[in-house]
Amino acid sequence: MAMKLRSCILATLFVCCFLYITGCGAFKYRPHFIKYRSRGANGGGQRGLQFTAPKTANYKTYYYESKIDKFGFTTEDTFRMRYLINDSFVSPSPNPPIFFYAGNEGDITGFADNTGVMFELGKEVGALIVFAEHRYYGESKVNDNKNFTYLSAELALADYAEFLQWLKTDQGYPDCKNSPVVVFGGSYGGMLASWMRIKYPFLVIGAWAASAPVAWFENLTDCNAYNSKVFRDFAAHGENCPVNILRSWDLLNQSAQTDEGRKKLQEYFDLCDPLTTPESVYSLAYELADAWGSVAMVNYPYPTEFLQPLPAWPVSVMCGYLQEGDLTDDEILQAVANASKVYYNYYDQYPCFNISEGDIGLDANIWGYQACTEMVMPMCSRKGESMFPDSQWSWEEEKKACEDQFQFPPGNFRPYWMVTQYGARQIESASNIIFSNGDLDPWQAGGVSDNLGNPTIYTLSIANSAHHLDLRTSNPLDPDSVKEVRAAEFLIVKGWLKDYYKGYMKQSANKYPV
Amino acid sequence: MAMKLRSCILATLFVCCFLYITGCGAFKYRPHFIKYRSRGANGGGQRGLQFTAPKTANYKTYYYESKIDKFGFTTEDTFRMRYLINDSFVSPSPNPPIFFYAGNEGDITGFADNTGVMFELGKEVGALIVFAEHRYYGESKVNDNKNFTYLSAELALADYAEFLQWLKTDQGYPDCKNSPVVVFGGSYGGMLASWMRIKYPFLVIGAWAASAPVAWFENLTDCNAYNSKVFRDFAAHGENCPVNILRSWDLLNQSAQTDEGRKKLQEYFDLCDPLTTPESVYSLAYELADAWGSVAMVNYPYPTEFLQPLPAWPVSVMCGYLQEGDLTDDEILQAVANASKVYYNYYDQYPCFNISEGDIGLDANIWGYQACTEMVMPMCSRKGESMFPDSQWSWEEEKKACEDQFQFPPGNFRPYWMVTQYGARQIESASNIIFSNGDLDPWQAGGVSDNLGNPTIYTLSIANSAHHLDLRTSNPLDPDSVKEVRAAEFLIVKGWLKDYYKGYMKQSANKYPV
Repeated sequence: MAMKLRSCILATLFVCCFLYITGCGAFKYRPHFIKYRSRGANGGGQRGLQFTAPKTANYKTYYYESKIDKFGFTTEDTFRMRYLINDSFVSPSPNPPIFFYAGNEGDITGFADNTGVMFELGKEVGALIVFAEHRYYGESKVNDNKNFTYLSAELALADYAEFLQWLKTDQGYPDCKNSPVVVFGGSYGGMLASWMRIKYPFLVIGAWAASAPVAWFENLTDCNAYNSKVFRDFAAHGENCPVNILRSWDLLNQSAQTDEGRKKLQEYFDLCDPLTTPESVYSLAYELADAWGSVAMVNYPYPTEFLQPLPAWPVSVMCGYLQEGDLTDDEILQAVANASKVYYNYYDQYPCFNISEGDIGLDANIWGYQACTEMVMPMCSRKGESMFPDSQWSWEEEKKACEDQFQFPPGNFRPYWMVTQYGARQIESASNIIFSNGDLDPWQAGGVSDNLGNPTIYTLSIANSAHHLDLRTSNPLDPDSVKEVRAAEFLIVKGWLKDYYKGYMKQSANKYPV
Repeated sequence: MAMKLRSCILATLFVCCFLYITGCGAFKYRPHFIKYRSRGANGGGQRGLQFTAPKTANYKTYYYESKIDKFGFTTEDTFRMRYLINDSFVSPSPNPPIFFYAGNEGDITGFADNTGVMFELGKEVGALIVFAEHRYYGESKVNDNKNFTYLSAELALADYAEFLQWLKTDQGYPDCKNSPVVVFGGSYGGMLASWMRIKYPFLVIGAWAASAPVAWFENLTDCNAYNSKVFRDFAAHGENCPVNILRSWDLLNQSAQTDEGRKKLQEYFDLCDPLTTPESVYSLAYELADAWGSVAMVNYPYPTEFLQPLPAWPVSVMCGYLQEGDLTDDEILQAVANASKVYYNYYDQYPCFNISEGDIGLDANIWGYQACTEMVMPMCSRKGESMFPDSQWSWEEEKKACEDQFQFPPGNFRPYWMVTQYGARQIESASNIIFSNGDLDPWQAGGVSDNLGNPTIYTLSIANSAHHLDLRTSNPLDPDSVKEVRAAEFLIVKGWLKDYYKGYMKQSANKYPV
């Protein structure tokens, strides 16, 4: 998942810009897939949204030509939707299961590389593995003069629906003509997966929606829930840890005002370039806020490289630097700097920290647009329940900021549409959906935790688990809670498949009555 | 429901034009709501798509300002969606049921006037009665330079979803904030009603979808099923009846070729104007084909005025003129002329028959567009099972004809999209839908008649019933079969309401978790 962060460049008052990051606006995160960045000329890193090389995923890459406008007739243009296929587990018998990942806001290869369960369970049941890339992201660009005119969850789902129908034809995989499809997704992809089952139940037999905050809209979820969870995640590793971070914001602001202060920060944070102005400190603060907010999402029990190369339990490692109480101002800044390096340079892979490359990448901007039109997810920070400065959520300010950033008319701000379109937690009439949420995950509060008495909706809370950990390949270091829930999820999916094949003869007979 | 008929004006060969109507293309019907037409200067009738004055319906008229593009951001323009409200049955207690009609291809007042059960059952349960007009039809025009750019079932459903959410707010009916909504519809409106429940189950607790041919797409329904049913409906009133009609096409074509023949037809058919050319006879043939094909839909047990002012059991009345075998050519033409007057001038309300006003009206053209983009419903006529000349269904010819008629690019022809989007008969995962079909109705074959073992889907076949007769106000002349099924439908809807109110406290507690 991904929250958005507006560029400070847009702020007219530097102080407000700082406050915007750390308090005066809601605290906001960047899109899911923060890039690895080069750290100056010698860094040798990469720009743009990229994942590390595949660890578990083997696939071939293909492209499907898809209509841009599926619900109206404004254009006949098409775009090339990238998709990845692994058919190595498929046996020669017809109609194998299809495991379909509903791509979310980023390069699809990254999701393939971090959704190991599809391969793991896919191997067990002989599934065809398919990852489809979300329109506008990665290589699946839509040519609309960069206006994001056709960027919506509804159209993405329609892309997947059309593609799945095609996949089962003679032009796709003829042996899959009557294959059952299980849809997978994490975070926004999990929202799409659950919505795919809700909207197209005749195309997918079930959905595994991991860490899907389908109800982070309108007033359905406490806007401080994200920051509250981050606070508790850090506090779990010593009560001083979040307190020291909370104290750091004022210290950063104070340091920003003097040459001496900025010089000290450059030294502590191991920056590649001098902080020549107060606003350069605000960029640094932005990076820090991003680190604390993001690491809580990826607080995994073993080293990972999902957002950044991180050690096992990175929050714990960070808090190792922030254990002490009664630190001096300088000690706090020093400790915060060390903790931040866990996120940005754990393996000492960069000679220095280049915050000037901290700008939002293209795909991040794209998510920023979604977050300003349909995916308006209220965020705030409440005193005593957050390690970020206080901030209120304001629909009006949010709307204004969106209009300023994207230069779009007021009507493009549609904060109520997702609930109208998908129903949020009103899943009584749906079936065959797993809503799993890790209880370390800041997004958990926006998910579905009550099946409203519907036994075909599984709401699974996973202790000691961060953002969609259950979608990752099994690991010996997984907590027992994750192992147990993942095993249950495997059984549930197998149950869906069993039911499908059991009813297949009857179903297929009814499908083609002529 | 409504099939389309292309204007002969577009045909370059007159013979082909004739054949197009009666054979060389598929036989096609006009939109649902054939207008009453003036019959020449003295006719005093009306032009345009109009219903007769309300019989059962009392309502007030309102307008809702709605976004034109709901799934993308191509325009910020809005349109005024008309809706009709009757709140006379609502008691002061909060959250009364809402009965919502999903408007289809025509002026919404016509549906209000011909869907008496909503008032009848609405009075019993104290419901708020709402009829919403389909975008582009009636007064709910969309200003897109007459290009029908935003004309789709998906957008119409999204209109209804947004409107229903709004209706429950303080700006709409605050007392309905937690009201259960039951959606009603007949024909294309029945398709929309069932799709509303399938796509927005969190907004509507159930759907009464009468005579909804949701599967008249692709190869899911025999393309001759419509004509086959018309044939059997007529044959039920004497085997000579359809045979005489079948013979008439050649005789009309022969008569068209000579002055004498055309003069004779003018006399038999009581035409206002002379038939000066062969093609004017083709216009007459068009009207006849329309009469036979349409009257089978509205073959109701008592006098109605749905498409035309008609007597009870109009097919039987028509066949009264076509009982004899071994008629001479002239006798057949004379009998056909008399039978056609049952449809066009039963009450002798017009001094003569003005076929020059048989052109397709505006709303009909709009449906023609839908039938060329999404609603491509294959029709053909097969020897021995039809009283129309043989014709094949050809996707290629249909596509070409659509492109010619609407001057749109090839990609606008989307004959597979409705099944991908709505699943046709694959309703296993849906719930709370009544699919009712009359077994006299030519559309029946395209409906859902098998619930695939899902006990919450009711597939009700109604003996002696034409097109969505069950939606009409109860009438002493209704056959027992209709009375029984309608009573069952009332019980089913009441059951949905009962279940909703029983679970309401729990449901509402879950709806607003914050």
